Amino acid sequence: MLQVRVKPGVEDRIRGFFPWVYRSEIASFSRKPKKGEIVVVRDVNGKFLGYGYINPEVNIAIRILSFDKNEPVTPELIRKRIKQAYEYRKRLYINSNAYRLVHSEGDLLPGLIVDVYGSYLAVEFTTYGMNQFREVILDTLVELLRPKGIYEKVNEIAKRVEGLDVEERVIYGEVPEEVIIWEHDLKYYINIPQGQKTGFFLDQRNARKFVRNLVEPGDRCLDVFCHTGGFALNMKRAGAGEVIGVDISELALKEAEKNARLNGFTDIKWVKANAFDYLRELDKKGEKFDVIIIDPPSFAKNRAAVPNALRGYKELCVRGLKIAKSGGYLAIFSCSFHITEQHLLDVLLQASYDVRRQVRVIAKTFQDLDHPWILQMPNTLYLKGVWVEVV
Amino acid sequence: MLQVRVKPGVEDRIRGFFPWVYRSEIASFSRKPKKGEIVVVRDVNGKFLGYGYINPEVNIAIRILSFDKNEPVTPELIRKRIKQAYEYRKRLYINSNAYRLVHSEGDLLPGLIVDVYGSYLAVEFTTYGMNQFREVILDTLVELLRPKGIYEKVNEIAKRVEGLDVEERVIYGEVPEEVIIWEHDLKYYINIPQGQKTGFFLDQRNARKFVRNLVEPGDRCLDVFCHTGGFALNMKRAGAGEVIGVDISELALKEAEKNARLNGFTDIKWVKANAFDYLRELDKKGEKFDVIIIDPPSFAKNRAAVPNALRGYKELCVRGLKIAKSGGYLAIFSCSFHITEQHLLDVLLQASYDVRRQVRVIAKTFQDLDHPWILQMPNTLYLKGVWVEVV
Repeated sequence: MLQVRVKPGVEDRIRGFFPWVYRSEIASFSRKPKKGEIVVVRDVNGKFLGYGYINPEVNIAIRILSFDKNEPVTPELIRKRIKQAYEYRKRLYINSNAYRLVHSEGDLLPGLIVDVYGSYLAVEFTTYGMNQFREVILDTLVELLRPKGIYEKVNEIAKRVEGLDVEERVIYGEVPEEVIIWEHDLKYYINIPQGQKTGFFLDQRNARKFVRNLVEPGDRCLDVFCHTGGFALNMKRAGAGEVIGVDISELALKEAEKNARLNGFTDIKWVKANAFDYLRELDKKGEKFDVIIIDPPSFAKNRAAVPNALRGYKELCVRGLKIAKSGGYLAIFSCSFHITEQHLLDVLLQASYDVRRQVRVIAKTFQDLDHPWILQMPNTLYLKGVWVEVV
Repeated sequence: MLQVRVKPGVEDRIRGFFPWVYRSEIASFSRKPKKGEIVVVRDVNGKFLGYGYINPEVNIAIRILSFDKNEPVTPELIRKRIKQAYEYRKRLYINSNAYRLVHSEGDLLPGLIVDVYGSYLAVEFTTYGMNQFREVILDTLVELLRPKGIYEKVNEIAKRVEGLDVEERVIYGEVPEEVIIWEHDLKYYINIPQGQKTGFFLDQRNARKFVRNLVEPGDRCLDVFCHTGGFALNMKRAGAGEVIGVDISELALKEAEKNARLNGFTDIKWVKANAFDYLRELDKKGEKFDVIIIDPPSFAKNRAAVPNALRGYKELCVRGLKIAKSGGYLAIFSCSFHITEQHLLDVLLQASYDVRRQVRVIAKTFQDLDHPWILQMPNTLYLKGVWVEVV
């Protein structure tokens, strides 16, 4: 097996179970590495650190899958990890037939995402090394879940960076254009081939449920960046009166409307608009809401984008606080790990000062339990939400 | 009304709705202040900042109750705030007849704590200024909740520091030695006169519910610092096999056992022991658990105690991780605002490194919704819990 020694100082982080080795941290190879092959990682003195796979062409050159000397990276280990991921989900109370089954590093399977939508699976390989195990992965998934079909999704950035030979397509059985899943007591259409990411924002399941805590019968509610309508539907289910969902994407709004009809809600108002403009407009008209959800797409794809993203968040908070009723609620989310929970608290504090509205925090929510994060990589906690009451 | 001007620079924090003025921040008084009287706080140029009450003898000299020029501090304002606090709780899904009705600064009523236990209330005044309003407070509570009895609890430190003339006693109706309350589908005896704090740790309600997510039928579970048994009972309700509750207090364990019997659980093992010693002993014997809760009392009553507290937390995490089964869960809590969430994550990371067990975080929990915190005072978020899976 290819032996890799890391530079002095790197070993401690790996002993602390950090699963990445950057290309710049490699001191030497026992021979020329091949893309995707299994390696044993050692410290500068040759002491064992872990087993992983390597892609010498990329920045994160090695992803470690096992820190146990007695457990090298084999198809059996991959199979075992998938089974553990499955057992973990069965153990948790998710209350939906749609969930993330494998969450990459969070399930000690870096480079693999598997989402379950009822009888269908969406699989995504994001590294060259993990794609080498596609056969055992698909076999194990079929064995465990007996799906009717599996669809392969492709992350275009990963494909290019890692040099992956993958295409979006059905790779097992049949996958219809449209699937209906349930979550709590609501149903949703999922378009696995067309949907963003792998089709649906599973990670906000708990937040969609939580919003029901805040909605009183008859409340006037606003779902900004509503996508396919998840929050709006839950507001309605909790007895909301007028509900407005806002999104810039016509396609998303069409899906949202279909989802509403699927659940028997006919009076949600879907508005195609730029969220910033629409919020300003609502404020100008003096409109007020009881519950406001602001769940924007990632404004900060990288660190350099953070200052601009914070300005965007600040403006959203300002606009949101202005149109909240006294005693009303506002939630703001970030799905980028560059925008931290502290960032959200800070912009809320600034917005509170600027618009002269006192707020108190009632809860924080995070990506749901089927998206575990690892302590050693704080950035695997990517989804954060802060819920406040506007006094 | 007494006019108080604050020193330059202080006004900005107050405009940001921070409700405290320290004695050292006061520039001048319009006349000699009287303990407990209502003041108007102004900046150095005389511009209005807020209304509050003053105790010139203490460090936190002024607590601001209103940042609105048109809303001075009157019995009517206090009544309105209590009603708002009550409406807020009614709106939330608490699923218990025991909850915190007024959470001091978190409900814009600094110095007042009110807990509801079914038909009985526990009230605590922690400032001289708030105690001046006891009449309207008790009247409003009786009017809103029609309780059978109200018991006054006394915080001895606050009593001494603020020079409060209060005694622990029944101040309205009758309060029995023991009350039975329900939370989710479990019942608990509450001893209002004798109980710690105001009788029961209401703030962990959501965490007690959350633990059920992790317990599988037959699991072996450990509740360290079990107090009156809340976590142990919920583990049992979720179908746990062997459950051990550990506490140093014989009185707490007696209550725990009574609570267990009240819910029909006869096989929980209650152990009187020092938690550190007991965990070490379990490890020596090679005992392993599926779910471990470690919910210690405050180790850090002040900032100076933090380093020692962190050593204590580190040791608890080390011991806990050692006796966790592979795939088992551990939760660690801090109820002191000096020990932050980041502290907990850090000691877990160190412990993970030391005991060579990889962990992943599955959730964070905080004080339940009836204990809101204010954005302007990060330390009002005092209760944090981190839940990890031991790989």
